Amino acid sequence: MIKAGIIGATGYTGVELLRLLAPRTDVEISVVTSRELVGSPVHKHFPNLRGHLDLNFSAPDIDALAQCDVVFYATPHGVAMDSVAELLAKDVKVIDLSADFRIKDIALWEQWYNTTHSCPELVADAVYGLPEINREAIKSAKLIAVPGCYPTAIQLGFLPLLENNLIDSDHLIADAKSGVSGAGRKAAEDFLLCEATESIRAYAVSGHRHHPEICQGLSEFNKGEVKLTFIPHLTPMIRGILATLYAPVKSGIEVTIEQLQSVFEDRYAEEPFVDVLPQGEVPATRNVKGSNKCQISVSYSEHTNMVVVLAAEDNLVKGASGQAIHNMNIMFGLDESAGLQGIALLP
Amino acid sequence: MIKAGIIGATGYTGVELLRLLAPRTDVEISVVTSRELVGSPVHKHFPNLRGHLDLNFSAPDIDALAQCDVVFYATPHGVAMDSVAELLAKDVKVIDLSADFRIKDIALWEQWYNTTHSCPELVADAVYGLPEINREAIKSAKLIAVPGCYPTAIQLGFLPLLENNLIDSDHLIADAKSGVSGAGRKAAEDFLLCEATESIRAYAVSGHRHHPEICQGLSEFNKGEVKLTFIPHLTPMIRGILATLYAPVKSGIEVTIEQLQSVFEDRYAEEPFVDVLPQGEVPATRNVKGSNKCQISVSYSEHTNMVVVLAAEDNLVKGASGQAIHNMNIMFGLDESAGLQGIALLP
Amino acid sequence: MIKAGIIGATGYTGVELLRLLAPRTDVEISVVTSRELVGSPVHKHFPNLRGHLDLNFSAPDIDALAQCDVVFYATPHGVAMDSVAELLAKDVKVIDLSADFRIKDIALWEQWYNTTHSCPELVADAVYGLPEINREAIKSAKLIAVPGCYPTAIQLGFLPLLENNLIDSDHLIADAKSGVSGAGRKAAEDFLLCEATESIRAYAVSGHRHHPEICQGLSEFNKGEVKLTFIPHLTPMIRGILATLYAPVKSGIEVTIEQLQSVFEDRYAEEPFVDVLPQGEVPATRNVKGSNKCQISVSYSEHTNMVVVLAAEDNLVKGASGQAIHNMNIMFGLDESAGLQGIALLP
Amino acid sequence: MIKAGIIGATGYTGVELLRLLAPRTDVEISVVTSRELVGSPVHKHFPNLRGHLDLNFSAPDIDALAQCDVVFYATPHGVAMDSVAELLAKDVKVIDLSADFRIKDIALWEQWYNTTHSCPELVADAVYGLPEINREAIKSAKLIAVPGCYPTAIQLGFLPLLENNLIDSDHLIADAKSGVSGAGRKAAEDFLLCEATESIRAYAVSGHRHHPEICQGLSEFNKGEVKLTFIPHLTPMIRGILATLYAPVKSGIEVTIEQLQSVFEDRYAEEPFVDVLPQGEVPATRNVKGSNKCQISVSYSEHTNMVVVLAAEDNLVKGASGQAIHNMNIMFGLDESAGLQGIALLP
Repeated sequence: MIKAGIIGATGYTGVELLRLLAPRTDVEISVVTSRELVGSPVHKHFPNLRGHLDLNFSAPDIDALAQCDVVFYATPHGVAMDSVAELLAKDVKVIDLSADFRIKDIALWEQWYNTTHSCPELVADAVYGLPEINREAIKSAKLIAVPGCYPTAIQLGFLPLLENNLIDSDHLIADAKSGVSGAGRKAAEDFLLCEATESIRAYAVSGHRHHPEICQGLSEFNKGEVKLTFIPHLTPMIRGILATLYAPVKSGIEVTIEQLQSVFEDRYAEEPFVDVLPQGEVPATRNVKGSNKCQISVSYSEHTNMVVVLAAEDNLVKGASGQAIHNMNIMFGLDESAGLQGIALLP
Repeated sequence: MIKAGIIGATGYTGVELLRLLAPRTDVEISVVTSRELVGSPVHKHFPNLRGHLDLNFSAPDIDALAQCDVVFYATPHGVAMDSVAELLAKDVKVIDLSADFRIKDIALWEQWYNTTHSCPELVADAVYGLPEINREAIKSAKLIAVPGCYPTAIQLGFLPLLENNLIDSDHLIADAKSGVSGAGRKAAEDFLLCEATESIRAYAVSGHRHHPEICQGLSEFNKGEVKLTFIPHLTPMIRGILATLYAPVKSGIEVTIEQLQSVFEDRYAEEPFVDVLPQGEVPATRNVKGSNKCQISVSYSEHTNMVVVLAAEDNLVKGASGQAIHNMNIMFGLDESAGLQGIALLP
Repeated sequence: MIKAGIIGATGYTGVELLRLLAPRTDVEISVVTSRELVGSPVHKHFPNLRGHLDLNFSAPDIDALAQCDVVFYATPHGVAMDSVAELLAKDVKVIDLSADFRIKDIALWEQWYNTTHSCPELVADAVYGLPEINREAIKSAKLIAVPGCYPTAIQLGFLPLLENNLIDSDHLIADAKSGVSGAGRKAAEDFLLCEATESIRAYAVSGHRHHPEICQGLSEFNKGEVKLTFIPHLTPMIRGILATLYAPVKSGIEVTIEQLQSVFEDRYAEEPFVDVLPQGEVPATRNVKGSNKCQISVSYSEHTNMVVVLAAEDNLVKGASGQAIHNMNIMFGLDESAGLQGIALLP
Repeated sequence: MIKAGIIGATGYTGVELLRLLAPRTDVEISVVTSRELVGSPVHKHFPNLRGHLDLNFSAPDIDALAQCDVVFYATPHGVAMDSVAELLAKDVKVIDLSADFRIKDIALWEQWYNTTHSCPELVADAVYGLPEINREAIKSAKLIAVPGCYPTAIQLGFLPLLENNLIDSDHLIADAKSGVSGAGRKAAEDFLLCEATESIRAYAVSGHRHHPEICQGLSEFNKGEVKLTFIPHLTPMIRGILATLYAPVKSGIEVTIEQLQSVFEDRYAEEPFVDVLPQGEVPATRNVKGSNKCQISVSYSEHTNMVVVLAAEDNLVKGASGQAIHNMNIMFGLDESAGLQGIALLP
């Protein structure tokens, strides 16, 4: 039985970890922390858990957390970096859903997150938890930096094209649409129903924190710098990210749609959570709502010589908590799909 | 291994049966029929099932269906009554999600459904599949009439009050709010997003088909006729029913809120899918989205001497497909909760 | 030219006043106050006003406001009562959209609003601004208390029945459904899109502040106390209130639907903003979105002897800002419909 | 008084024409046709028009329509082309909201619309009704082809860049997001609330009918062919289009954001319905809901040398019926803004 702790479990990634872990017979949720809600039953805050989890929130306490085999940080950025070292020292594996350990270039991280990194020494050892790329490293990792929601969809969409050297990496575009849950559960005017429903808008047009994270990954696949225009959009729905990716075919290369389709199908043939759709089908976020799947389609226009990739995921599952648990499964040598086989809720 | 067939599985109760049954290791989905989609993969119609169900739609065929242990009808009313007898004759258990066998008074059924009943001889033997009432009868039933979505919530809400003879059964009111999926997947103008979102309206004010079904049940609990005003409302959301029930305390009786709370808690103490909330908490449909739970609260005002009960369910789960499977579990002597422990998707 | 000031114009009733007043040629918006946004252009906060209103927010200042002919308070309760007297002393007419002057019984107000009333001496003179009841008093009023959103729909729905002595006033029920804008623009977790969309729930089941306001009005129409059960519901949409009203016919009285229909049609025949629908049609909130209309239908069941009234309005227009302007039109002797003829936005 | 007729007024562009025209004192709606609803009051079909329009649907009849000064076709493509010639022969001005006369290359039109054009001789004379381009021609036009919803936003967004020769017209991308009302009011499964809400997806990835229309316009501005990748997305909301446009700066050219901002502001300085936002602000579709405005922002990244333009409009107003009326105003020498000054409904 794996003992799991969750720090900061009052937000949407927290409740999603609980939804996915509570039914498991091989994992015991031992500790769920929240400074604000100490002593209150978790199911009072999340009534969907009534009858499924009988536990109170506790204050974050290193000794209590040290009894766990694995601790998830479902906290805002800037929290994990202050206590991860202590937990690792006590042989607890750590899976951080925040951004604290995602970016290897510490100066770059500090610039985008506008904070001094309090634990730079662990950044190099942290494994970026995208299983489709880093499965081997994850197996032996002590500290996982779970990828952001946008970076997951966008990297999975560009990956086969860059690995196969097919596209002009100086002119990549990611037009991404996210549900409002990506903003978390904090009470902010912009995310009120009356502000966010029945409307779509772009945001962070001059630069989004996921941009350096995405570029770090794409550059690795590309074995060289990439230039990416990334425009995120707030979409009037709860869950889901759809990334529409535009990539011009590299000069001097000829591609066919059959070839592109094969490149994607081959790359992801063994991946349990990446589903390459047949030619002519396109993903919709509703097809993956509540599931850990990323659905991907690829298309190509000869006239413009442009490849268009569509990647859909549930931002709270494959884009956060499901992927975190996928990492846990790999770290503990379990069936990778354990607890992650839930079928999307449609409609 | 129980072999299951599903007739008419192209609508929302169909896909919900598939979502709930596909992961089970003790049930095999053998046949999924649709006249329109013969030969087409089920997951092409329902992309959430990609990777979870590898089966094509077939034409409804009694011989093929007769190989099943149990057959679910996820059809519009008026279909099941034409072929159920043949399946029963071949020792197949039948669980009908439509209205064909719900109402014992055949003339009444024919009046509301505006059709001649083609199989009246089976109506008396059909068991009304509300486990909280008919558990014993379900165990040995051959033919189950799964309750309608509104009737489930409304009956569960009034039941403890009527059984305990606490309320004035001549003045019952059920103000019910349903998500749009209650109308099914048929292409009708009224249920287009642009017609149904960002608005709420009552409908069927002069009479809804679920009225006689509800009254049949309430009268049984009451051991005498009831008078019920039932107004359903179309609510701008996909899933969920919230029933707000108003019941004046019977003349000459005194009640306290503590007593009412106990009456509800006691009645449902052993029920796996009815969750009586603590005093002061009220249900929301989001708390049960995708789950088989019905959440109920009770409150009382001395000033008006009125009991108000709130009952929330997912109309496609506890109000349809989940309840159907609950019946199957009971009929086959399985753990009642098998396959129905999924936690609601929140947010 | 009427000079108008708006205090606290950063919320939804504020922007709605601006939307309705800005196009008028007989009204000049002179002052728009907000403590937080002093100096900032109003259209920066409300981008729908770009090109329609060229004014900055200013700090609330009695001297500046005293230059106005009329001042609207679009503030939370407890603000208007502190400064209304000063404005009245300077011969400014005041239209208060908050609750400060709605309830004549000051002790009752203080109990529900949990505050000491700082200006009780003006409460008696304040006119309750429901034009369908108080048109004459409004004409000469100095201070208007604009009715709340629920009270408007519920009073208009019960009014003809009570005035005509047709219903049992001891057993009235108002099951009301409101869009989320009723909660205002304040950043509160409950009203985040991810909390409020795709769900419906009751709230304030043990008592809502609009209850005493509604009962005050109904008792007047009834010439005697009424007993009302009032359950409000948070509905997943921006705008709109639908009130479903249940009223048993008074013992000893016989009614027909034709008679009830006439009672409503006659009562509202001359009212520009109450639209009694033909028998068989029912209102939907989408039909009045953005308009100052209240649509009402009445139905009757002989079997239960129950009258059911449905009343739909836009909570921000007829339920707040539109009604406030209707009052202004009457106070200044203008055409009552001036600036309020906008047709609902459908779809 | 201008007499106006509307053919096929049962869809969303039809009701929007009626909403915008009914309040006008200089226009009389004389004829509203619908084959299906002959004899039925228009306000029964569109209850928002109750009290604002007292007219019944009539059958399309050339003689009756010939009494009008102007006739709007709010019909599906393929209808207008069959009767426009007759109306023009009777000196009626025609404003066609469908696609029949938008594309000058008749073979291209026939290929995309999969129909033989029945009136090719009028195509050359029809004026493409984008006032920001064709104001002079509109003044004397007899037949207007109102631009499509996507083409309006996308052309207005690229126009200043192409006219000023600033961007590489071989690598244009338009990622467009539309509300569901763009699909019209026809009962189709894909646009049911339960299918379209809480999800986003791309569609027509292999080619959308608006592509040739957009390219026709862009090529004119560019004085040479353009290559455009255009991916439309179905967005879970009723109204609104947001076009996110990506344009690489032309090789050899240097731009600054100040210069780009000026290019947009100068181009649209005199345009009543194009609103260039200040640097740093971005449009949202809610800011223009129900209004005839198109809000545009421009941004530029030195790192990628990419210009990103965002253009938001209400697809039913500036993208259809509002623009149609703008054309009418110009054709009849009226104030261009007459009847189109309505402020967007926010929230």
